[in-house]
Amino acid sequence: MEIILAKSAGFCFGVKRAVNMAFNAAEGAEHICSLGPLIHSPQLVERLEGKGIRVVNDVKSMTDETVIIRSHGITREEEDALTLKELTIVDATCPFVKKAQQYAALLSREGYAVVIVGEQEHPEVQGIISYATSGETWVVANPEEALQIPAHKKIGLVAQTTQSFDNFSEIVQALLANNKELRIFNTICDATSVRQNEARSIAGRVDLMLVIGGLNSANTTRLARICSEIQPQTHHIETADEIDLNWVKDVATVGVTAGASTPEWIIRDVVERLQGAGK
Amino acid sequence: MEIILAKSAGFCFGVKRAVNMAFNAAEGAEHICSLGPLIHSPQLVERLEGKGIRVVNDVKSMTDETVIIRSHGITREEEDALTLKELTIVDATCPFVKKAQQYAALLSREGYAVVIVGEQEHPEVQGIISYATSGETWVVANPEEALQIPAHKKIGLVAQTTQSFDNFSEIVQALLANNKELRIFNTICDATSVRQNEARSIAGRVDLMLVIGGLNSANTTRLARICSEIQPQTHHIETADEIDLNWVKDVATVGVTAGASTPEWIIRDVVERLQGAGK
Repeated sequence: MEIILAKSAGFCFGVKRAVNMAFNAAEGAEHICSLGPLIHSPQLVERLEGKGIRVVNDVKSMTDETVIIRSHGITREEEDALTLKELTIVDATCPFVKKAQQYAALLSREGYAVVIVGEQEHPEVQGIISYATSGETWVVANPEEALQIPAHKKIGLVAQTTQSFDNFSEIVQALLANNKELRIFNTICDATSVRQNEARSIAGRVDLMLVIGGLNSANTTRLARICSEIQPQTHHIETADEIDLNWVKDVATVGVTAGASTPEWIIRDVVERLQGAGK
Repeated sequence: MEIILAKSAGFCFGVKRAVNMAFNAAEGAEHICSLGPLIHSPQLVERLEGKGIRVVNDVKSMTDETVIIRSHGITREEEDALTLKELTIVDATCPFVKKAQQYAALLSREGYAVVIVGEQEHPEVQGIISYATSGETWVVANPEEALQIPAHKKIGLVAQTTQSFDNFSEIVQALLANNKELRIFNTICDATSVRQNEARSIAGRVDLMLVIGGLNSANTTRLARICSEIQPQTHHIETADEIDLNWVKDVATVGVTAGASTPEWIIRDVVERLQGAGK
């Protein structure tokens, strides 16, 4: 059995950075927590807990300690609350997300109605939008929603960093027709499209496709959906244990990729289990 | 024979305004000229000449007189030259073109590389681009040309007012992929698309289509091309005299439209000639 592992599988730049910062911070700190789970990987969160990093979901219940801000970023209100509590902050917000927050703030300050392209409930989007402190804001997930926005003189646009470029571009087209001025910051991070394109290419030439990552991870779930459209024999798994060996019994080639929040050791476990089954 | 005359045939807002301003100015002035032909209609230019309005093609050869600036606008350099000569200026620049000039100036001032969507040689485009006085500028006619522009941090976009929205939108998409910030002023005037859409609709349900306007008028030529794609029996004419009565011999319905620079009396002449032939 041949195994084709995607070069782009696993941690993106921002997640890798956040995880390293968390492990480093855990070395010196006595009381340490992350505001929400650091990444959407239950397995990694467990390892972090082993190093003493608790998951705390709201600032109120924090006491004298070090707090790690995860790569998705936090809202302005959470930031203010942390500052008021005089906690030690390890800011692991992805620098690309930080840019999107700053652009939202700039657009709002300069009188633009601010539109965020993304998923309303996603913590990254909640963070970005909180920085648009004056004037109107909208979150839109698709061109149909964008067309519901009434005409404006000045519309400013930023994107959740993991959005697809095609969807972003269609939303721009929808807004272009109705609004006099459109100021767009393309804050989409390449990592997502590179990963998705490579997954598409691999899914098209294998007999079975495995997509590894948290079931609660939006980007992994999307990755699995993209693969299953090309290769119906696609499985979204969290760990190597979930591989049913019947899947690979009569199979010549298996493709493997993983979401942005999937640790390397889990990918390695999957590849090793497949190699074992192929013998 | 049924004649269907487009509601949107003839002068747009800016041209109507410029022609009125010119005739009014001719009343009081002894020496009066326009910088270039006022509009792309040889017949109207002839009538203006009858009122004493000469066509002068460069500022240098102007003497003590009143100068009409046509609806396309002029370049900043021409404006400076007119001001230096202390001539009386009747500024008939279309207010929508003026906006595009102001946006180009604003973008340039705020550090954007300025892209104009339009025809490089068109006087309106030459005027608009002259207001982008600092930094880089480009004129692009289509998405392929837009893709040749190297990646920038800040790109600003304005359009020649008569551009098609679809082309503008495709150019926006092309620039969106390569540039971090895109600030777009949608300066396209509805008049053009309204006229083109009505022409398409009429051309699809008549046996013959007549498009009236100067052979040197870009918008009339485009209008004729659009109609001929739908109705091969389309003729681009300047005046009623050019109608070959053989065209309408066995014809039940004739559609008539006219470019933005076609005077009403020429349209009326055409309709009357058709009515005469149909009897």
